[in-house]
Amino acid sequence: LEVAEPPRRELFRRLNIVPGGTACLVEMRTFLLDKLPSHAALRAVDNDLQHLLISWFNRGFLTLERIDWNTPAAILEKLIRYEAVHPMQGWDDLRRRLAADRRCFAFFHPALPSDPLIFVEVALTRSVSNTIVPLIDSREPGADPLRADTAVFYSINNALKGLRGISFGNFLIKQVVLELNAEFPGIDTFVTLSPIPGLRSTLEELLEKREGEQLGEDLQALLRPYQEGLLEATGEQDPFAAIDRLLERPVTGSLKSGLDTCLRELALFYLTHLKRGEFAFDPVAHFHLSNGARLERINPGAHPQERGLRQSWGCMVNYRYLEADLVANHEDYVGQGRIVMSRELERVARHLAEAIHAESAASV
Amino acid sequence: LEVAEPPRRELFRRLNIVPGGTACLVEMRTFLLDKLPSHAALRAVDNDLQHLLISWFNRGFLTLERIDWNTPAAILEKLIRYEAVHPMQGWDDLRRRLAADRRCFAFFHPALPSDPLIFVEVALTRSVSNTIVPLIDSREPGADPLRADTAVFYSINNALKGLRGISFGNFLIKQVVLELNAEFPGIDTFVTLSPIPGLRSTLEELLEKREGEQLGEDLQALLRPYQEGLLEATGEQDPFAAIDRLLERPVTGSLKSGLDTCLRELALFYLTHLKRGEFAFDPVAHFHLSNGARLERINPGAHPQERGLRQSWGCMVNYRYLEADLVANHEDYVGQGRIVMSRELERVARHLAEAIHAESAASV
Amino acid sequence: LEVAEPPRRELFRRLNIVPGGTACLVEMRTFLLDKLPSHAALRAVDNDLQHLLISWFNRGFLTLERIDWNTPAAILEKLIRYEAVHPMQGWDDLRRRLAADRRCFAFFHPALPSDPLIFVEVALTRSVSNTIVPLIDSREPGADPLRADTAVFYSINNALKGLRGISFGNFLIKQVVLELNAEFPGIDTFVTLSPIPGLRSTLEELLEKREGEQLGEDLQALLRPYQEGLLEATGEQDPFAAIDRLLERPVTGSLKSGLDTCLRELALFYLTHLKRGEFAFDPVAHFHLSNGARLERINPGAHPQERGLRQSWGCMVNYRYLEADLVANHEDYVGQGRIVMSRELERVARHLAEAIHAESAASV
Amino acid sequence: LEVAEPPRRELFRRLNIVPGGTACLVEMRTFLLDKLPSHAALRAVDNDLQHLLISWFNRGFLTLERIDWNTPAAILEKLIRYEAVHPMQGWDDLRRRLAADRRCFAFFHPALPSDPLIFVEVALTRSVSNTIVPLIDSREPGADPLRADTAVFYSINNALKGLRGISFGNFLIKQVVLELNAEFPGIDTFVTLSPIPGLRSTLEELLEKREGEQLGEDLQALLRPYQEGLLEATGEQDPFAAIDRLLERPVTGSLKSGLDTCLRELALFYLTHLKRGEFAFDPVAHFHLSNGARLERINPGAHPQERGLRQSWGCMVNYRYLEADLVANHEDYVGQGRIVMSRELERVARHLAEAIHAESAASV
Repeated sequence: LEVAEPPRRELFRRLNIVPGGTACLVEMRTFLLDKLPSHAALRAVDNDLQHLLISWFNRGFLTLERIDWNTPAAILEKLIRYEAVHPMQGWDDLRRRLAADRRCFAFFHPALPSDPLIFVEVALTRSVSNTIVPLIDSREPGADPLRADTAVFYSINNALKGLRGISFGNFLIKQVVLELNAEFPGIDTFVTLSPIPGLRSTLEELLEKREGEQLGEDLQALLRPYQEGLLEATGEQDPFAAIDRLLERPVTGSLKSGLDTCLRELALFYLTHLKRGEFAFDPVAHFHLSNGARLERINPGAHPQERGLRQSWGCMVNYRYLEADLVANHEDYVGQGRIVMSRELERVARHLAEAIHAESAASV
Repeated sequence: LEVAEPPRRELFRRLNIVPGGTACLVEMRTFLLDKLPSHAALRAVDNDLQHLLISWFNRGFLTLERIDWNTPAAILEKLIRYEAVHPMQGWDDLRRRLAADRRCFAFFHPALPSDPLIFVEVALTRSVSNTIVPLIDSREPGADPLRADTAVFYSINNALKGLRGISFGNFLIKQVVLELNAEFPGIDTFVTLSPIPGLRSTLEELLEKREGEQLGEDLQALLRPYQEGLLEATGEQDPFAAIDRLLERPVTGSLKSGLDTCLRELALFYLTHLKRGEFAFDPVAHFHLSNGARLERINPGAHPQERGLRQSWGCMVNYRYLEADLVANHEDYVGQGRIVMSRELERVARHLAEAIHAESAASV
Repeated sequence: LEVAEPPRRELFRRLNIVPGGTACLVEMRTFLLDKLPSHAALRAVDNDLQHLLISWFNRGFLTLERIDWNTPAAILEKLIRYEAVHPMQGWDDLRRRLAADRRCFAFFHPALPSDPLIFVEVALTRSVSNTIVPLIDSREPGADPLRADTAVFYSINNALKGLRGISFGNFLIKQVVLELNAEFPGIDTFVTLSPIPGLRSTLEELLEKREGEQLGEDLQALLRPYQEGLLEATGEQDPFAAIDRLLERPVTGSLKSGLDTCLRELALFYLTHLKRGEFAFDPVAHFHLSNGARLERINPGAHPQERGLRQSWGCMVNYRYLEADLVANHEDYVGQGRIVMSRELERVARHLAEAIHAESAASV
Repeated sequence: LEVAEPPRRELFRRLNIVPGGTACLVEMRTFLLDKLPSHAALRAVDNDLQHLLISWFNRGFLTLERIDWNTPAAILEKLIRYEAVHPMQGWDDLRRRLAADRRCFAFFHPALPSDPLIFVEVALTRSVSNTIVPLIDSREPGADPLRADTAVFYSINNALKGLRGISFGNFLIKQVVLELNAEFPGIDTFVTLSPIPGLRSTLEELLEKREGEQLGEDLQALLRPYQEGLLEATGEQDPFAAIDRLLERPVTGSLKSGLDTCLRELALFYLTHLKRGEFAFDPVAHFHLSNGARLERINPGAHPQERGLRQSWGCMVNYRYLEADLVANHEDYVGQGRIVMSRELERVARHLAEAIHAESAASV
């Protein structure tokens, strides 16, 4: 019954004793993770270190702290540095994201008092935002947070690479929902506005090697109804190139509506049909769905800058955290890989299924 | 290379996540430790819990805090409750022990902010104290700490039974020496004034079953030169009973000096000849010697109250922490069980050896 | 238009500059106030010092802080020392008064961080307490504060004699009402349970020199209907002596009810008919009425210990702070000396007026 | 003996009671000070307000706090805003000025916790700096503060206009010297590196209207020995124009040395001969001399940027705070207007006197 423990763990525990020891071990792991790909033998060392760090950075030892303009500059500059979802250009960007109609929270560990481990940025808005633009523009005027009915989680970032594989995000979002509930009784909707990082590259790859593969054929089937219109409107030979062309300039009317519908279906197809084992292939989707959130809305045109266009033709998703459903959704997803979504998206999903099915039927 | 870990540990880690989880697990272990003697099967559970607690209560996560009259009452009342070496009668006793010529320090863990894990009480004096009486008498007037040249560590207590087996005392004393060095450049002597809890009961036992045992014969040899005088002065048949009788009333002159010499030799014999494996049998001695302190002085009459008489005929010991020698002393003791002592005690030790040797020679 | 200022004030301002200066000036005034009665020339010095202290201890510079068992002992012991309304015997009494069903708040000034200037003790109860006994008994079990509907302010004390004449009590009570409102939405009644310090001595004096004085005659008229019964029941010659005799032992039935009615009328007569200028002669009444509280209830038997019997035959008063009426009550009292009271006490007051009036009529 | 006080003061005291009252009154005075020049009648209002603010912002109520990169951003941005001596371009400049080889301290008042009232910036250097350039260049690498022997106070700024006329600078510098003494025993020299704001404009004015005025003639006498060389080297007609021309490009050799000597004499002449009553006309000089500092060194070329050239042909001064002499220097200056200076500057002063005297003699 007794477990022999690798002596390396005891060594790490002793290193932790000296002042600054914890910080040093976290940095050591950053270094290790960089070397791992080329030094497989280090994996055992990393295992031991990760094992200890998981134990030490247990949620019970973390404190949630609000980050605002009264936070020490030494901590704030780390937010500027570690914000990777929607990078900040400097202090002006940061100041806007900490204004009265925003909230920012982070987890801290007592042994690393100046290091936010993970932080989330929230905008307090009226109705659910369908574009990221005003949320990350430092010139955007502030709103009255007391009139807000929605909290939009628009960025969540891990700060310390040395803690990779030790997950806090789940706890962070849930606790922040509690904090916001207490401060703003008028807020009843908690959603994210999230990127779809792999949408474009994954579908492009799928389209290329589509012969004989079910997913590739489904994608083709999905595109078929739009294909002709897209090619015609742009003179391109390839539907994705046609989409790019249309996104270069403002389109309107039925063309715009057709484009949006197509993008919404592409995104939903990617989010729900592409899998890693039982689960969503997209890491952001997997994270929120595991937490018990549901797929709420897909927003074409939500991120019209270079980064957004490149990742996902400008599309973003709202995942919604509905307190009452979190546990059931989590069970459904984790147990059976079932993805819960809003009525609106269920309609899109049905249409998607019909299109694919019709096509298969036709091709028989 | 991978280590299978008992799933119980993961369970404990999850229990720790909830608010108050750590406190709850520490209490659970208190409960476990109470049940262990009668439920051997729980030992494996205790092993896992202790393993985690050792990891979580790593010195690197503890903070040293000074305890004084500005400390919250909720913490202070725990000192009153947990002081076991020299119990306090209430707030007046405590207040005296936190006065200007005293220092008290404790280790805290961030997850238990109101619970001192271990605390040490220090008196700042001129010269090394050879009696505990003025240190624990609340009516004793205070002295000017700026004129002190000595710091006497007169009580060190673990507070949480649930952390038994997780040792902090070593770190605590060393860090407190650093703190006092910084605050009082005039203090150059750091000693304890420590009890000898097992002195009397162990020697009494030894004397009873002394036949055929080397230690018992040595003890008899040690007592022989004093025996006649003791019995004569008291009319008792037994040397220990004679000592008791003499301690009941103030003795003076050569009788007093003989009694003190005898007690000093008994104590030194107990501290240095009785072993648990390689190490000192007395737990207090073992603790300080492991830390690298040396045996400095044995003080008969240092603790003339009931508790002191019962434990050790009123004797107490000074262990001295000499910064420059700590590492070497520690190595000597831990490596070879060698006990370093002051010149004065070395003389007593030599005399003791001669007495025993002479006796053995005679008995041959 | 320019004002010549006494140079003494500038001197005091300069004394304030050194560390501990403020504390020193407050102590200097304590000393001054002690000397004033015999050294009239010091009055001008006191005026200047008071002038400065009023300016420095402006409410805008004070902070309200909750006092509880997490407060430093150095502050808590001052509560024990300065509690004069219902003195505490030591730490056990204090601990009970800081338990979960109690609240204690104090004002602090930044220059005197360890000195509560004034503090108030509050019990959270179900319904309005009509006796002080359970509130000051340290063995009384605690109640669940979340079930409370009433906050009883049962002690308010100024701590620093050197700040005499600088009033904070008004601000303190109002702010504490706000704090309690925020913490306990279920509490809707805010009352005091206050002593009537001068009741007995003042009425005794009045009775003695009653000849030819209107108030004395009114008092006699008030007593007349009870007199015979009181004297008869006790065999005393004097109505107040008879009351004393009855209070020595538990009385019941109609005797008890008659005694209570008589005491209630005596107290109301004292509180509302005896004046200092336009205002209530009783200092406690004057304080709460100035704040806009109303006379809510008179409680015979509320303070059956020696102190209460001696001051007021055991009677205490509830003054009630009704947020909505505070301003109007304050205006009425300060402008016209009008005392607002509850319906119940209005009935007693009418009865009282009739008794006095009838008597006057009879005596014509 | 009683002093009638304007009722306005009582009004201000009552305004101060409400939350944020102090901040509001300070802002009110900012507004008043702006209006004063055109509304003389407001002077009495300002007098009353200033009187109260002097009383409230007594040194005894201020706390000295260190400002560093751990200070809340809300306070740091005020430093960027209020730094007027050597303006900062943004956060990079600020960060450099808070690096390990710098110190920044500010006074705070408890009622304005986010508002530094006055702050001072200090560089820890080896030897006394004779140029401001490296101190305000954000790209300048840091030095090891533990090797420093000198603390250079290179900027001191009042932050709140509404507190004009309430002086803190004196206390601030003296307390910061104490703080630095405690932290860095190796630092034994405390100097400023200060601007000479009125040097150039005052001397230009003096030169223009020099006819018949003693000071103007002295200035001319001072310049005479340099005049020919200056005009010759530049082809200018006017000595100040010639100086400007030389400062436009790097000069070397004897020309450089002549220019520096001339500037040093001009600056010393300005600092010590131009008076406002008994005292130095230059406000910065008056401030430091009143504090008991001495004139230590004049540094031509210390501030070669536009602002420095415009104010003082690039010259700056070191004022030195020598603990042992502060009181005597202060007495000398405040009592008799005597300016204490270093040996080096005493030599320059003697030479200056001779030049002026020789000239006067010649002109007779």
